[in-house]
Amino acid sequence: MPIYQAPLRDYQFVLNELLDIYNQKELAGFDEFDPELIDAVLQGVADFTTDIMLPLNGSGDVEGCKLIDGKVITPSGFINAYQQYVDNGWATLTCDPEYGGQGLPEVVGLFATEMKTATNMAFAMYPGLTHGAYAAIHVHGSEELKGKYLEKLVSGEWTGTMNLTEPHAGTDLALLRTKAVPAGEGLFAISGEKIFISSGDHDLTDNIIHLVLAKLPDAPAGVKGISLFAVPKVMVNADGSLGSPNTLCAASLEHKMGIHGNSTCVMNFDSAIGELVGEPHQGLRAMFTMMNQARLGVGIQGLGVSEIAYQNALNYAKDRIQGRALSGVKNKEMAADPILVHGDVRRMLLSQKSFNEGTRALMGQQALWLDKAERHSDPLQRKKAAQLAALFTPIVKGFVTDQGFKACVDAQQVFGGHGYIHEWGMEQFVRDIRIAMIYEGTNGVQALDLVGRKIMSDKGAALKIWSEEVKAFVQGQLGNEAMQPFVVGLMAAAGDLEKATAILGTEAAQNPDSLGAASFTYMQLFGITSVAWMWARVAQTALAGLESNTEEQAFYQNKLKTAEFYMAYWAPQTRSLLKQIGAASSLICEFDEADF
Amino acid sequence: MPIYQAPLRDYQFVLNELLDIYNQKELAGFDEFDPELIDAVLQGVADFTTDIMLPLNGSGDVEGCKLIDGKVITPSGFINAYQQYVDNGWATLTCDPEYGGQGLPEVVGLFATEMKTATNMAFAMYPGLTHGAYAAIHVHGSEELKGKYLEKLVSGEWTGTMNLTEPHAGTDLALLRTKAVPAGEGLFAISGEKIFISSGDHDLTDNIIHLVLAKLPDAPAGVKGISLFAVPKVMVNADGSLGSPNTLCAASLEHKMGIHGNSTCVMNFDSAIGELVGEPHQGLRAMFTMMNQARLGVGIQGLGVSEIAYQNALNYAKDRIQGRALSGVKNKEMAADPILVHGDVRRMLLSQKSFNEGTRALMGQQALWLDKAERHSDPLQRKKAAQLAALFTPIVKGFVTDQGFKACVDAQQVFGGHGYIHEWGMEQFVRDIRIAMIYEGTNGVQALDLVGRKIMSDKGAALKIWSEEVKAFVQGQLGNEAMQPFVVGLMAAAGDLEKATAILGTEAAQNPDSLGAASFTYMQLFGITSVAWMWARVAQTALAGLESNTEEQAFYQNKLKTAEFYMAYWAPQTRSLLKQIGAASSLICEFDEADF
Repeated sequence: MPIYQAPLRDYQFVLNELLDIYNQKELAGFDEFDPELIDAVLQGVADFTTDIMLPLNGSGDVEGCKLIDGKVITPSGFINAYQQYVDNGWATLTCDPEYGGQGLPEVVGLFATEMKTATNMAFAMYPGLTHGAYAAIHVHGSEELKGKYLEKLVSGEWTGTMNLTEPHAGTDLALLRTKAVPAGEGLFAISGEKIFISSGDHDLTDNIIHLVLAKLPDAPAGVKGISLFAVPKVMVNADGSLGSPNTLCAASLEHKMGIHGNSTCVMNFDSAIGELVGEPHQGLRAMFTMMNQARLGVGIQGLGVSEIAYQNALNYAKDRIQGRALSGVKNKEMAADPILVHGDVRRMLLSQKSFNEGTRALMGQQALWLDKAERHSDPLQRKKAAQLAALFTPIVKGFVTDQGFKACVDAQQVFGGHGYIHEWGMEQFVRDIRIAMIYEGTNGVQALDLVGRKIMSDKGAALKIWSEEVKAFVQGQLGNEAMQPFVVGLMAAAGDLEKATAILGTEAAQNPDSLGAASFTYMQLFGITSVAWMWARVAQTALAGLESNTEEQAFYQNKLKTAEFYMAYWAPQTRSLLKQIGAASSLICEFDEADF
Repeated sequence: MPIYQAPLRDYQFVLNELLDIYNQKELAGFDEFDPELIDAVLQGVADFTTDIMLPLNGSGDVEGCKLIDGKVITPSGFINAYQQYVDNGWATLTCDPEYGGQGLPEVVGLFATEMKTATNMAFAMYPGLTHGAYAAIHVHGSEELKGKYLEKLVSGEWTGTMNLTEPHAGTDLALLRTKAVPAGEGLFAISGEKIFISSGDHDLTDNIIHLVLAKLPDAPAGVKGISLFAVPKVMVNADGSLGSPNTLCAASLEHKMGIHGNSTCVMNFDSAIGELVGEPHQGLRAMFTMMNQARLGVGIQGLGVSEIAYQNALNYAKDRIQGRALSGVKNKEMAADPILVHGDVRRMLLSQKSFNEGTRALMGQQALWLDKAERHSDPLQRKKAAQLAALFTPIVKGFVTDQGFKACVDAQQVFGGHGYIHEWGMEQFVRDIRIAMIYEGTNGVQALDLVGRKIMSDKGAALKIWSEEVKAFVQGQLGNEAMQPFVVGLMAAAGDLEKATAILGTEAAQNPDSLGAASFTYMQLFGITSVAWMWARVAQTALAGLESNTEEQAFYQNKLKTAEFYMAYWAPQTRSLLKQIGAASSLICEFDEADF
C-alpha cells in the first residue's frame, strides 16, 4: 500500500514564513487563530487522512461504486470513514461560523484539501462537492434557503452536488436543455438529464442537495437564460425533518478511467421540486462567483496526488536495488545499488519535488489572495487581491493539474514494470488525477480564460499589477549576492513571458483564432514563470531562515538547492514555449478542416 | 466504438517515394516484391485489423483474461480472431521462407504491426511475442531446435514468449535466480519464478514455446552467466506431435493498468524441461541480437496507438459542436461550431498529426537500416546500416513511446469529459500505451543506452555517420528556395544537438553520473531533431511529388504544411532541452539521498 507523510513542515513554511499569515491583521477573522491552532488542525487532518482515508484508496478503486435498485452503494468502509470525517468536524474548517463553520482561512482549507486528495481523491470529492453547494447557497441563496440547508451542509450531515453538464452541453452551457417550470409557492419542477455528476447519489448521508442549472420558460437564449436551483434528493419539511423522496434519481453510473470510489452519475430529474438560488437567469453568474475557489480546489488535486506519487516513488527509489551507479559501485554490501543513484531517476524525482514545493507556495499565495479579496479591511486591497486571484485562477487549475499529471506519470515510471501493476498504487494515481485536467473547465478552457478574459479583456491590468510586483521583488534583490541565481532565472522567464504577452497582443488584433492557438502554450509559460517567482521568494525566505533558525539549517539549505534545480530545469523551458508561440500560433489557424 | 482508417497512402508515401524500397536491388530478396504485392499485403492487414481486431479491443479490455483451474481464458472472440489471423498468413510476413515465412522486408512488417497495434494492442501482443521467440531460435537455435519449433511459430500455430523478469530482477538481469540443471540428453530442468510474462498462458493455441533466461550450475556471476532456454508448455515428440504437459504454469495474472486482453502472467517453472538456445552463458548476448527489432516493435506501438487516438480525436472534433470560434460564428445553421474551430483543439491535433507522420517516416527509415544491415550485398553498407540502426534503436523506442503516450493523452483531452469515460475508447488507449514506456527496457534505460553505449562507448562513430548525412542533405538543399523553411528548422535543431553532445563529452569526463542525469533530456533532443530531419526529407519528397503527380496536389501540399508546423512547434523545443542539459545535469548529482 502506498505510504504518505503529510508535508506539515512545508505547510508551516508556506503559511508562517513565506506568506506570514499570522500577521495579516487587516484581514477580518485572521486575529482569531494562531500557529498552535492551525498546526493542530493540520496535524488532525494529517492523522485522519493517513490513518482512515489512505487505507480505503486502493480498495475503493477496485470495488468502485455500484448502482443497485436505483441506489448507489459506495465502496466498503466509506460510510464509516465519512461518519468519522463528519464527527471530527473536518467538513467545517473554512465555513461560516454562523452556520457551524470554523471560519478558518482559505489557505488553511487548501492544505487540508491537499492531504485529503493525496490520500483518497475519490473519497475527498464527496465533501469537496458539498463545499461547492454550500458556497453557492451561502453567497446566492435566500435566507430561507440558507436556514434550510447550510447547517447540514457545513456539518457534512448532508452532501451537495453541482449539476451542470448535459450530453450535448459541457463547456458550452448555452446549449442546456434541462427545464424548470414554476410549480407554485416559489417552487419549480425541474426536468432533464445531467451527466458526469460527481457524488450524484451515494449511501453516506440521508440527503443530498443538488445544485442544478436549468432554463425557465421565459429564459432568454444563451448563457443569460440559465437559472440555478437547489433540488434536494429528499424533500425537507418546515421543521427540518425529512419528507418524501423527490422525483430524481441516478439513472446510471459512468464507467470511468479512475476515481472509481466516487459515484459519477447520470442524473434524471423528472419534475423534481427545487427552489431558485439567486435571481432568475443569473445562474451562470452565480456559478462564476464560486469559480476561483472551485478551480483552486481542482488545482490542489493536481498537487496532492503528485505529492503522494512523489513520496512513493522516492521511497521505492531508495529501496529498490538494481544495477550500479555509472560512477561505480555505491553499495558494496548489496548485489546492486538503490536506483536513486541513477541520474535519470533523480531527474524525475527532482522534477516532481521542485514542482510540488514551488506549486504549493503558489497555491498558498492564491488562497491568500482569495482571503484578502474577501476579508481585507481596505477596499482597494480587496480589489487588487481579487484581480490577482482572477488572473491566477486558470494557472492554478490548468497549469498545476497538467504538470501534476505528468509528475504522476514520472513517479509511476520510477517503479518500472511495478508501476503498471495495480497493487503498487501508482497506476491508480495516474488514472485518478487524469480527470483534474478535464473537469471544472478543461485545461484548454482555462488557457482561453487566461488569454481572453484575464489578459485581453482586462487590457492587461491584473497582469500589470503582478508584473510590477515581480519587478519590485527583482529590484529589491539586485544587491543581494546570495539571491543572484534565483533572480537571474526569474528575470529570464519573466522576460520571455513579457515577449509572449506582446505577441498575444499582436495576434489578438490580427487574428483572434490564433490567440486560441497560442493560449495553452502561453499558460504553460505563465505557470512556469509564476512558480519561478515563488521559488525566488522561497529562496529569499530560506536565506532568512538560515540566519534566524540554527536548528533547521538542512531544511533551508534544501529549499535553496531545490530552488536552484527549478531554475536550471524548469525555468529554461520558457524559451522554447516563447518560440512556439511566435512561430506556430498563426500557422495553426491556416489549416483547413480537410488538412487534418 | 473507435473508428480506424489504416494510413495506407502514407505507407505508400514512405515506402515508395521517401525510402524508395522498390529500387534497393542490392538488398537480398528486395527484387522479389513489387508495389502491387506490398499494397495488397498492407490492404489485407488493414481489412483484417479494422474488421476483426478493432471490434474486440474495447470488449477485450472490459472482459480481460481469466485464470481458471490453472489455465488462462482470453476474452470472447480472441480465439476465433486468432485462428483467422493464422489462416490468413499474417503471422508469416517477415519470416524466413525456409520455415514457411514470406521473407518480406522489416519495413513492411513494421507497418503491418502499426495497424495491428492501433486496432488492438493487447491482441497484437500474442503474435508480437511469438515473433521474438521465432527470432531468438532462428538466429541462435540449433538445427534440431529450429526444425522442432520454427514452422509452427512462423505459421502462428504455436505462440512464443520471452521470460526475463523476476520480482527482484528487471533492468538488472545479473540478479536472476532462475536455475537450469542438466537433466541428460542435452535437456535441462528449469526452476524459478518469472513475472510480467506477456502472453504467458492462453487458450489461442495448443502449445506455447517459452524462451527463458536462467543460470546453469557452473555459471559465472553477473550478466555473463545467463543462459537462454526454449521451454515448451507441452512437450513435443520426435514426430512433432504433442506429448505430456511440461512442469510449468501460470501462477497468477498480473492486475494491470491496461492491455487487459493480453495475459500478463506470473510463471512458475518447476524443473520444467527445456533446451539450450545458443551457447551456455551467452543468453543475454542472444537476447541483445534481437534487441533492435524488439525495441522497434515496441516503438511502433507508440505510433500505432497515437495514430488511432488521433483519428478518433479528429473525428470527434469535427462532429462535436460546442461554443463559437473566437473570430465569430462559423456554422450559422447549428447552435454551436464544431470544436475543430478552436485554436487549442487544433494545436493538440496538429501536434499529434505532425508527430505521427514524421515518426512513421523515421521508423520506416530505421526498419530499412535493419533490412540493409542484414541483406545488403556490400559488407561496408551492412556495417554502416547496423551502426545507424543501433544508434536509433533507443530513439525509436524511448522517444516514440514517450511522445506517443503524450499524444494519446492529448487526443483524450479533445474529448473533454467523454475522454474519461470507457465507452469512447480514448482512456483505454492511454492506459494501454502506457506500458510501452516501461517494457523492453524502460525509457530511462533507453536514454542510458543512447548516451552510454551508442554515443560514448562508440566514441561518436555512428553519430558522426548520421551527422554527416544530415550535413550533406542540408548542403544539397541550400540553393533550393522552397526547402528553406525546413532546412533552417533542421539546422537549428541539429546545431542544438551538436552542442548537447559536446556537453555530454565534458560531463562524461568529469562526472559519469551526470551523464545519466542528462540522458533522457538528450534523448528527447535527439528524437525531435531526427524527426525534423525526416520532415525535411519528407518536404523534399513532397516537392518532387507536387511536380510529378498532378492528381494528388492536396496530399503533397498537406505534407509541406505539416512539415512547416513541425518546424514551428516541435523543433524549437530543442533550445530549452539544450539549456536544461547544460544547467541541470551536474546539479542533479549533487543532491544527497537525504535531500530528496
